[in-house]
Amino acid sequence: MPVNADLVAERRGAHVNSEEFAAFWNGGKKDLEEKRWRENYFLRDGYEEKFTVPDSYLSHKELYERMVDRMTHRFQKFRELKASGRYEMPDFYESCRYMVESEVVDAHCPFTTHLSMFVTTFLGQGTPEQQNKWLEEAANCNILGTYAQTELGHGTFVRGIQTTATYDPRTKEFLLDTPCLEAFKFWPGGMGLTANYAVVIAQLYTKGKCHGVQSFVVQLRDENTHKPLPGVTVGEIGPKLGMNSTNQGFLGLKNVRIPRENMLMKNAQVLEDGTFVQAPVSVLTYGTMVYVRVIILETAAINLAKAATIATRYSAVRRQSPIDPNEKEPQIMDHVTQQYKLFPQIAKSVIFKTSSKSLNNIYRKLLQEIETGNYDNLADLHALSCCLKAIMTKESVAGIEVCRLACGGHGYLQCSGFPQIYGTTTAAETYEGEHVILLLQTARYLMKAVKNPNLSASVAYLKNFPTLSTVARWDSSVPGIIESFEAVAASKIRLAADSVNQRLRDGMKAGQANNASSIELVAAADAHCRAFILRSAQESLEQTIKSVSPALGNVLRDLLELYAVDAAQRALGDLFRFTTLSEYDVKQLQKRLEAVLSRLRPNAVAIVDGFDFPDEALKSALGAYDGNVYERIFEDAKKSPLNQEPVNSSFHKYLKPFMRGAQSKL
Amino acid sequence: MPVNADLVAERRGAHVNSEEFAAFWNGGKKDLEEKRWRENYFLRDGYEEKFTVPDSYLSHKELYERMVDRMTHRFQKFRELKASGRYEMPDFYESCRYMVESEVVDAHCPFTTHLSMFVTTFLGQGTPEQQNKWLEEAANCNILGTYAQTELGHGTFVRGIQTTATYDPRTKEFLLDTPCLEAFKFWPGGMGLTANYAVVIAQLYTKGKCHGVQSFVVQLRDENTHKPLPGVTVGEIGPKLGMNSTNQGFLGLKNVRIPRENMLMKNAQVLEDGTFVQAPVSVLTYGTMVYVRVIILETAAINLAKAATIATRYSAVRRQSPIDPNEKEPQIMDHVTQQYKLFPQIAKSVIFKTSSKSLNNIYRKLLQEIETGNYDNLADLHALSCCLKAIMTKESVAGIEVCRLACGGHGYLQCSGFPQIYGTTTAAETYEGEHVILLLQTARYLMKAVKNPNLSASVAYLKNFPTLSTVARWDSSVPGIIESFEAVAASKIRLAADSVNQRLRDGMKAGQANNASSIELVAAADAHCRAFILRSAQESLEQTIKSVSPALGNVLRDLLELYAVDAAQRALGDLFRFTTLSEYDVKQLQKRLEAVLSRLRPNAVAIVDGFDFPDEALKSALGAYDGNVYERIFEDAKKSPLNQEPVNSSFHKYLKPFMRGAQSKL
Repeated sequence: MPVNADLVAERRGAHVNSEEFAAFWNGGKKDLEEKRWRENYFLRDGYEEKFTVPDSYLSHKELYERMVDRMTHRFQKFRELKASGRYEMPDFYESCRYMVESEVVDAHCPFTTHLSMFVTTFLGQGTPEQQNKWLEEAANCNILGTYAQTELGHGTFVRGIQTTATYDPRTKEFLLDTPCLEAFKFWPGGMGLTANYAVVIAQLYTKGKCHGVQSFVVQLRDENTHKPLPGVTVGEIGPKLGMNSTNQGFLGLKNVRIPRENMLMKNAQVLEDGTFVQAPVSVLTYGTMVYVRVIILETAAINLAKAATIATRYSAVRRQSPIDPNEKEPQIMDHVTQQYKLFPQIAKSVIFKTSSKSLNNIYRKLLQEIETGNYDNLADLHALSCCLKAIMTKESVAGIEVCRLACGGHGYLQCSGFPQIYGTTTAAETYEGEHVILLLQTARYLMKAVKNPNLSASVAYLKNFPTLSTVARWDSSVPGIIESFEAVAASKIRLAADSVNQRLRDGMKAGQANNASSIELVAAADAHCRAFILRSAQESLEQTIKSVSPALGNVLRDLLELYAVDAAQRALGDLFRFTTLSEYDVKQLQKRLEAVLSRLRPNAVAIVDGFDFPDEALKSALGAYDGNVYERIFEDAKKSPLNQEPVNSSFHKYLKPFMRGAQSKL
Repeated sequence: MPVNADLVAERRGAHVNSEEFAAFWNGGKKDLEEKRWRENYFLRDGYEEKFTVPDSYLSHKELYERMVDRMTHRFQKFRELKASGRYEMPDFYESCRYMVESEVVDAHCPFTTHLSMFVTTFLGQGTPEQQNKWLEEAANCNILGTYAQTELGHGTFVRGIQTTATYDPRTKEFLLDTPCLEAFKFWPGGMGLTANYAVVIAQLYTKGKCHGVQSFVVQLRDENTHKPLPGVTVGEIGPKLGMNSTNQGFLGLKNVRIPRENMLMKNAQVLEDGTFVQAPVSVLTYGTMVYVRVIILETAAINLAKAATIATRYSAVRRQSPIDPNEKEPQIMDHVTQQYKLFPQIAKSVIFKTSSKSLNNIYRKLLQEIETGNYDNLADLHALSCCLKAIMTKESVAGIEVCRLACGGHGYLQCSGFPQIYGTTTAAETYEGEHVILLLQTARYLMKAVKNPNLSASVAYLKNFPTLSTVARWDSSVPGIIESFEAVAASKIRLAADSVNQRLRDGMKAGQANNASSIELVAAADAHCRAFILRSAQESLEQTIKSVSPALGNVLRDLLELYAVDAAQRALGDLFRFTTLSEYDVKQLQKRLEAVLSRLRPNAVAIVDGFDFPDEALKSALGAYDGNVYERIFEDAKKSPLNQEPVNSSFHKYLKPFMRGAQSKL
């Protein structure tokens, strides 16, 4: 099919070169080429042709079965690729990211948890002997594992989980037991049907005493028959809002015995006689959490960029509602309200990806510091990763929904791609730490920082606003807006601290005081996060701009400006409270908003082209590169199993007798 | 199963009587009893027992087939009920609402569009002869119809639709034709597989001239065989984010001939010789639109109340994370941040239902006025219905998502009920008028009102703020907050008008000027709407409070206070701009927020009990009346077809060969 004429014109008329943008977005020309090679290798081998009915028509069971087919095929290709030596995989972590970023595996893959959690847990918590025993097999996928922490009754509060592991010194074994329904493991990815091993988190009991949660390797299914082992009750938890083929599972253990060596003992240990040896420092778990969050943030930004790509291309193709009567129907992207829906999402994608890169850089630097025994910046990084995860996943989901709704009814179709993107991204709002819980963790750190602003770079701005009465001078430049956001954050942090302190003085216990002030604590962490996102993105983009063409530089500046102005408009109340912002300034912001939208208009399609998602990754009838929107929607509908017969059986069985039987009026 | 002990305690400790609340919410004691009788009759007859696998596990095709089974059964019972004479159905509209409100049919029902659009169109646009011919058959469900307006290429802009109906005076027939792919009808509910008739909206051509869109009755399928008639291409459009068994369809017509009498001619007419006779006034279509919107608003409020019920009960049962270390894990509803998620949604449900009742009252009054030939208030009502539909559906969806996320991972399960509620409610954000389009329609009316504030009661507040410089005195009482919101609305309306006028003076055409100012126009309509919601809800609730017990009165006042304070906190920027709000006032708002949350805490469960949703309507493992959350989640999972065999076939086919074949490291 030829490319839609409006899209051709958009691409011809853009000032920015989408190839240059793509190189920027994908970390350089070389990485971009490699990515494209990879996508071609994995996604364009013709294997998908066997799946004539689109996934969205399948039953829960059929979808799982197809996904095992699809993913074993892709992983086999990955093995072959590795064996060929074409691509050097520096380490396991990189290997994971390679798979995730190339759209080869995603949150729907039944083995994602195996890769992201099971194998990494061995890396982080296994002794060298344990790594020897299991890591190679696991990395080879000779065994498939999962990470079983969350229970039916406990998610957030890990210390409350109820599965027990009781050491029996006579047999040198642990007895794993699920004491009640609430203690059933629930939610581990791949546990339902795919995994035959699990790292099980349980309360360790030895010598009659509980030593808190520890990790245990438990075989769930026979390696040959795949049947659950004695004492193991395992199954899948049923359909969800998304990620259905992930086959999250439940697990009950009835006095299942495992050898002592199956407790992961890099940190804490149980000796043969049952003596418990405490872990020295538990900082490394923090490290893994941050690593997982970096991936979550990147994925959220990528998913938002996908949604923005679909909605932007659709808005270039779709024509509707003349602006002046008797004029031709314009591309809907010419309606300013449509620009106001789309372009902030494009900007957010870029800002979020940039900020998540910043977090990754801080993380990499920290890993080096940790190697030299310097843990100073760990708490700061952890606090940052908490609030960034909370805010960026939430904002990405909100942006994805804006994009979906911007496509009207067609955005509601499964073939638009939006429901999938939304389902996956909103899951990330919950897993690995719920929004408010994470912000409260950041707030806890900020309550320390407010007493000691020298703690770290990320809270240094507190020094610029030493008291609540320090009102920032409003300055409408982007750096000025950033400073204002820091003023807002500093003030909200101080307000929250004052609230907590007042309640402590009134005689509340610490927990009660924090609970009573928690709305303000959350607001403080939120403001801190937004200031960081803007500052880190601006610093990083300013660096980038130095080495790119003026056209790309302008676009990046426009995106930053749009993000900043939009953020300011949404925070007017805060800015009035803590800066000298005036009514005149508010009006200026509105003018700037309108101006930057109109500057971005001619570049919008070129920018989303520069996100460089292949059609196979977008999986969207609305967002394909060629813009044949209506043809693709129609094509998808024609594949419906319900459309393969002129009259559905339910007509004869139910409908006709009903229609004929009516004698009394409705 | 016994009722969860925490829920028992909540119910015992509440100050408000949930039975009294239920009578308030359901329009009085008598209506409540009737509703319960109806729910019992329709939903507890044991018919559902044949469906052993929950709906969410089914394929797209299976779900449709089950829904036809289920819904023909329910409609047959409705016939029997009518025949028994037990319940007097005052008119067809009431009959529709009876079915919708009793949860007997919902948006997922394949015949909803038949009821809500096909039959009502005959009522609104058919001549007496046409009503004679079709209405009884339709109301009897002897024929099932749909309303085919939207096309693949046109939704919002009805004048742009491309299907043609060309009159042939020789045969006295219309030729209906789909000239291109974009002109395919797309989205009509029930059209895919269920309906055998449709009202088709098409461009009327007669005597070589186009007379714009008119409505035509077209038979799609043979009444006996249900096979598509010659020239008719019909099918279903495939899976969506929700409402899948609605079987929305596509329709192409290839020179399909229908008799002249099949054009609905209550308004415009085509005479036998092809002469076109213009409709006198087209106000009545407005009326139907308002009627449909009243139902949409009510449904949105009900859906939000459902979500709030589920999340509130779950939050009373779920225990997690001690507030002070070493304390018992509290009900998560004792975390203030959780209250801040839930209670505003409860308040919003009540406010929205109350406001939608106000709209309905205005509508009823207007119908009487129209009968006396008085159309004065029609434009105002239409403008109100536009913005209310836009804002209330959006806010309801946002609230539903807050409730889902407040239930953590378990909220993501299909068996939580949230995905269904969300899918249905977000559809209402788009159908019957997209958010921004509707707000721009309201804005158009407001731009007239600002020149003539005597237009109607809903814009009378403009007179209190005659110029932009009239700043309202902040007064923190609820009536004071309402006045402030009116000040905000008045100012934003004036600002938008100024922007448009400035652009007109600068030489822009009207459409261009409106487009360039559209962000401000939308903001003005949004503010107008929020002021109306608050004012109408407050007036109505104050009336209610006079006739209820002091305990219920207090709760209703608390809900109104919470809604108002929450709304004020979210609009701080606006309030700073257009009222005398100070930093002190902002701090007071925070204190009031915390106080009202804590006052509502003991009543939360009793209030949602008072929404009186039977378990069969909530369809939620998390929200059932008895609070056996974990048991029900587990029960649902055990029903998964994937859990009926110990090892899935995909293990032998794909997984085992893959796991065995691994020789090169991942």
